[in-house]
Amino acid sequence: MVIARRRPAARAPQRAPRLDKKEYERQLYELQLGLVALHRDVIAHGRKVLVVMEGRDTAGKDGVIKRIVEHLSPREVRVVAPGKPSDREQTQWYFQRFTASLPAAQEVVLFNRSWYNRAGVEWVMGFCTREEYLAFMQAVPHYEKMLVRSGIALIKYYLDITHNEQKQRLRARRRDPLKQWKISPVDAAAQKHWRDYSRARDAMLQATHHTDVPWVVVHADDKQQARLNLIRDLLLRVPSALKKKPLQRPDPRVLREFDGSLLRSGWIAP
Amino acid sequence: MVIARRRPAARAPQRAPRLDKKEYERQLYELQLGLVALHRDVIAHGRKVLVVMEGRDTAGKDGVIKRIVEHLSPREVRVVAPGKPSDREQTQWYFQRFTASLPAAQEVVLFNRSWYNRAGVEWVMGFCTREEYLAFMQAVPHYEKMLVRSGIALIKYYLDITHNEQKQRLRARRRDPLKQWKISPVDAAAQKHWRDYSRARDAMLQATHHTDVPWVVVHADDKQQARLNLIRDLLLRVPSALKKKPLQRPDPRVLREFDGSLLRSGWIAP
Amino acid sequence: MVIARRRPAARAPQRAPRLDKKEYERQLYELQLGLVALHRDVIAHGRKVLVVMEGRDTAGKDGVIKRIVEHLSPREVRVVAPGKPSDREQTQWYFQRFTASLPAAQEVVLFNRSWYNRAGVEWVMGFCTREEYLAFMQAVPHYEKMLVRSGIALIKYYLDITHNEQKQRLRARRRDPLKQWKISPVDAAAQKHWRDYSRARDAMLQATHHTDVPWVVVHADDKQQARLNLIRDLLLRVPSALKKKPLQRPDPRVLREFDGSLLRSGWIAP
Amino acid sequence: MVIARRRPAARAPQRAPRLDKKEYERQLYELQLGLVALHRDVIAHGRKVLVVMEGRDTAGKDGVIKRIVEHLSPREVRVVAPGKPSDREQTQWYFQRFTASLPAAQEVVLFNRSWYNRAGVEWVMGFCTREEYLAFMQAVPHYEKMLVRSGIALIKYYLDITHNEQKQRLRARRRDPLKQWKISPVDAAAQKHWRDYSRARDAMLQATHHTDVPWVVVHADDKQQARLNLIRDLLLRVPSALKKKPLQRPDPRVLREFDGSLLRSGWIAP
Repeated sequence: MVIARRRPAARAPQRAPRLDKKEYERQLYELQLGLVALHRDVIAHGRKVLVVMEGRDTAGKDGVIKRIVEHLSPREVRVVAPGKPSDREQTQWYFQRFTASLPAAQEVVLFNRSWYNRAGVEWVMGFCTREEYLAFMQAVPHYEKMLVRSGIALIKYYLDITHNEQKQRLRARRRDPLKQWKISPVDAAAQKHWRDYSRARDAMLQATHHTDVPWVVVHADDKQQARLNLIRDLLLRVPSALKKKPLQRPDPRVLREFDGSLLRSGWIAP
Repeated sequence: MVIARRRPAARAPQRAPRLDKKEYERQLYELQLGLVALHRDVIAHGRKVLVVMEGRDTAGKDGVIKRIVEHLSPREVRVVAPGKPSDREQTQWYFQRFTASLPAAQEVVLFNRSWYNRAGVEWVMGFCTREEYLAFMQAVPHYEKMLVRSGIALIKYYLDITHNEQKQRLRARRRDPLKQWKISPVDAAAQKHWRDYSRARDAMLQATHHTDVPWVVVHADDKQQARLNLIRDLLLRVPSALKKKPLQRPDPRVLREFDGSLLRSGWIAP
Repeated sequence: MVIARRRPAARAPQRAPRLDKKEYERQLYELQLGLVALHRDVIAHGRKVLVVMEGRDTAGKDGVIKRIVEHLSPREVRVVAPGKPSDREQTQWYFQRFTASLPAAQEVVLFNRSWYNRAGVEWVMGFCTREEYLAFMQAVPHYEKMLVRSGIALIKYYLDITHNEQKQRLRARRRDPLKQWKISPVDAAAQKHWRDYSRARDAMLQATHHTDVPWVVVHADDKQQARLNLIRDLLLRVPSALKKKPLQRPDPRVLREFDGSLLRSGWIAP
Repeated sequence: MVIARRRPAARAPQRAPRLDKKEYERQLYELQLGLVALHRDVIAHGRKVLVVMEGRDTAGKDGVIKRIVEHLSPREVRVVAPGKPSDREQTQWYFQRFTASLPAAQEVVLFNRSWYNRAGVEWVMGFCTREEYLAFMQAVPHYEKMLVRSGIALIKYYLDITHNEQKQRLRARRRDPLKQWKISPVDAAAQKHWRDYSRARDAMLQATHHTDVPWVVVHADDKQQARLNLIRDLLLRVPSALKKKPLQRPDPRVLREFDGSLLRSGWIAP
């Protein structure tokens, strides 16, 4: 699982430009219109959609999910943020409690963190054994393939931020009285274990990227660009009967389907 | 179940003043700080909190829930918007599928609509039998008492709007491309069946208000006042170990615990 | 909860005669035919049946359940033997995990022990607090009434054995290599805590017997008579469209609906 | 999926001898002692055991399951007989409702029919599409491997009977008033579709036999031999810490691990 990684070149400098607020809101509005149309299509055709949102602490998972669901029907959209397993669940098949939350027809489910906890926080913080970790890495593509073959449109995003950006966000969080709940001992370890998390992420992307359910990696230092491009990508990936004017495609400076070269080139934060 | 109702006096004119946006945001911020503190207390002491949010279509349930959960941990706060029961669920005990979503220790659950569907939309639109309706009305106080005795802090809000306000909101909704999903045949009936819904609401409030779990009625024509006062009330009702500076109490022009005189006086919209 | 109990007269001597094996099997066969007919009726009319089987350790719960389900369809009959709650379940509403197992239309569910654990083993062995115990005793009639009003045919049996009979059965169990699993520390306490269990049973019968779901008490020292009469009673209590030759009624020497005089007269084992 | 099958030689004549009742009971008793010991070991070491029991109608699934669970603790052994999926479940991932019943630590679960319904009755009777059938055949080994890797001891038995034996059993069933519930329109088709079921079974065995979870095929025309040998095999396959005198091994005239030659030789009923 050790991934040889060439000394990355300095992180590729080409970044998408920051948007001014007006422009961001205009584009977000357009994209949310697309989501509303998509959702109607999901309901009309009995589709099943499952979005997995992963990323380090402070990467912006909550924020992008909030924008996606903002104008969708709460009755057919569920956000699932898996909590701590019960003592009984801890002895079950690892995927069992996640399986209970999979979408039925007409439903969109968003996982705010997911089974990938095992390849990230659980592995880095020592909450699972090496054996459990390896079993997970091997099982997950098979699990996901089965979901896809059963007709679930499964899309997984990894929000990637730089070391420096996380540092600033954690600092801001500590100062923001509204974000107190986000401070936990585990979070505190995010910076300290930065490299361990990076290695765990690299191993996860390599081992669990597969053609049925590719990882889509999003540069998330710029939250607005991350949100817009992720939603853009989502609209393109969910199959639908919509015939609308061609959408702007995601910006490759912000969002790319994973391949190993992204690690070597430093496109993904070291 | 027919409730004699004196011709109401013209709806009581004393309304709380509209707030300017800045002031609303300032107050909301303060209240959300209170919610964050409350939530930490819920987690620290293993409490269980269940909030039921009811009200006619367009009354603002989604909006107030969004403000409550905005800065709380998604792992310990769940919003449940009960969907259509499956064919199997339809033959089960009515409360069975709701029971599956009740909070465990450290959890806050918000029901966006709830078992009260039976006393509202199901009854008005003929989706349940008279017998089922009556059985529900009799059972619900017992059900709720049991939950309360089991240590759940259960609080239920009814957001009340006027006929005219609903009319305008429905019209705005039809024009807003982002709210297309909210338009359903059932919603279309909201105005047409205004008086039936009023009668169903009155019967529900009278039959299911009890000292263990009183109904709290909120004037919701003014969304901002509704949100602020509802959160204020919530902070006061959830038991907690917090010892903070005394909170401003909810404005009785906006929010009151139900009693029958509110129907007779016209405080609740006819 | 202390129940004044007159010194019981010597336990009423009139017992039903022991049956020879042939006669027992003939009668059991007839009754099982009745159960098969009943079950078909349950399926045909979408009924819901829930049987609660309670009694001290070794009272014969497993045995009578085995005879009831022996020739019924495993797809529509479920036997539920509630295990230890998970740590999460332990913080939930006490009835929540039982509620998940309630019957849907066409189903017969038998509880081998049930929510009454709280009034028996949990209370006697100190696994719940006094407050939880009292809350349970108060809640259970309301809970059961709701189930009944929702159309569930709910019937609860208490298998009663004498001190001496339990002693002999426990001894036989210890000697029987096939019954090793039944020996647990809790069981070991059954004899030692005989009087505590008696008191707990008396309190339970008094507090939780109600006209909607009466307790049916069965003398179970004679297993064969207990099984035959219990099934006879069950066939009479489950509503059905069956029009068959009148069944023999249960023998009042073996089976009676609870009333307080059964405690005072010593009909129920002291 | 069409399986070339040489004209089988007349079914291999070497059958295990019929046992007299006494001998059968003696051996069964010994084996049930072994099951009790095994179960204690499962509980002591927190193991998870899942037994899948498949076979045509009347093959004897209920009977063998009854003997396995007869002396085991109902609190740690569950028999699951999957019923008809609800309308919502029908749109979910096929394995979802089965997944909810998987064993946790210390549990033994027996599936009386299972997910293999899709490869048998559903496929033969046209209750699923060809696409669903093929997706299932491809998915099932991956699903089972994951369960095994998660520490579940998963063992699957196929009870095989001959055409003639089924004919006689169905006839006896129709005459037995206690087995009326077993007569369903689907069962009625068992004989008519004998060859279709044979073909479906052959395809299933070939496609879903894998080294992680091999199919174990049992000659079940002789019920007693089938039960004894299946339990014998089960005791050998479930990992345990038991160190007992070497067990008699299953009789290869009665029970064999699947391989393709069993089809060609006629060992499996054509």
